[in-house]
Amino acid sequence: MEKFKVIEIKESVFEDNNRQADKLRRELKENGTFLLNLMSSPGSGKTCTVLQTIKALEEEINIGVLEADIDSDVDAQAVHETGTRVIQLHTGGMCHLDAEMTRQGIEGLGIDNIDFVILENVGNLVCPAEFDTGAVKNAMILSVPEGDDKPLKYPLMFSKVDVLLVNKIDTIEYFDFDLEAVRERVTKLNPGIEIFPISAKTGEGVEDWANWLRKEIQAWKE
Amino acid sequence: MEKFKVIEIKESVFEDNNRQADKLRRELKENGTFLLNLMSSPGSGKTCTVLQTIKALEEEINIGVLEADIDSDVDAQAVHETGTRVIQLHTGGMCHLDAEMTRQGIEGLGIDNIDFVILENVGNLVCPAEFDTGAVKNAMILSVPEGDDKPLKYPLMFSKVDVLLVNKIDTIEYFDFDLEAVRERVTKLNPGIEIFPISAKTGEGVEDWANWLRKEIQAWKE
Repeated sequence: MEKFKVIEIKESVFEDNNRQADKLRRELKENGTFLLNLMSSPGSGKTCTVLQTIKALEEEINIGVLEADIDSDVDAQAVHETGTRVIQLHTGGMCHLDAEMTRQGIEGLGIDNIDFVILENVGNLVCPAEFDTGAVKNAMILSVPEGDDKPLKYPLMFSKVDVLLVNKIDTIEYFDFDLEAVRERVTKLNPGIEIFPISAKTGEGVEDWANWLRKEIQAWKE
Repeated sequence: MEKFKVIEIKESVFEDNNRQADKLRRELKENGTFLLNLMSSPGSGKTCTVLQTIKALEEEINIGVLEADIDSDVDAQAVHETGTRVIQLHTGGMCHLDAEMTRQGIEGLGIDNIDFVILENVGNLVCPAEFDTGAVKNAMILSVPEGDDKPLKYPLMFSKVDVLLVNKIDTIEYFDFDLEAVRERVTKLNPGIEIFPISAKTGEGVEDWANWLRKEIQAWKE
């Protein structure tokens, strides 16, 4: 018996992704389900952050997770072990998810009694920034070892998201990473952005992030 | 006066990228110029590795560098400060380089008296794996903080390259990273691959990598 569903995502046939995204968002609103699109480079700690977020919220909120990857099921396996409903999406060679691909995931997961769906997007700072997935809010992770110059190099991603999580903050003493420079570069691109330094490994800062989510999930239901 | 050239790369008009790549490689061969395509996630240390490689080889080999990024000139600036010939390529939103885009860079750089060109590709583990740039050899960097599971998630990239540099090896004690597991996962995908653990920060392991390059650059000229 398979422990969690694995879906091989099909390429979208719709030309107007924005319209599909708005349609998905309306349906999520009617269902009272908040969809978060979580993006980052490979290895920034998306899955660890998902696990910490589940730990912080699972007693009060029904959570579902969509794990997107080119290949492999290791992330869905890690989430499955927490007892949270999860499915793995395989994108084949595709470097991002659009709204129709996200819909395939949402339908595969089933969201009847789910308040909060986390979509862990493909690890990539370029392509996912260009596609509205239908998410209510978009978040990205920049991890300390990646360096504080990333907002200069991948400006579209930093300008599109509602939240920036600066992860692996527990390793800041081992790397040349200027958090204030990141704040300055990011708010210049995106003045309204929320920034939370966290460590998905130690749990540092996760409560502030969880509080932001509580507020947004509640607001979406109203 | 501009210190180094910045080129806004145009999208290719050629449908058959493999043919364009073979054509570029033949021309490089005639010119005795070895082109290395260096790929990785954002923040794995491509530019630091380029700087260490220049330091190891500049007294014996004429080097040129193509720095590709969505935006910003910070990497070309860093290379320029070493006195090495460099140009910055801006890809706009494009997440990879193909052979025709690489040709625009090679022509912008000028390679008459250049033995070795390093192409620092866009930071991305997905798209660049799908396009032959015309390079003689392909290398990728996996940095320790990204985690040892990356070969499972981005198998195409790991299966396509000739060399894997495992960078930031000086930080291995701060992260859960199993180098032997990486070796096993990568050689399963790509039995002929060369693997060099390095630290582009401390210089550890760089000499083995430089020796491999010396041998390959020499062989290409014969």
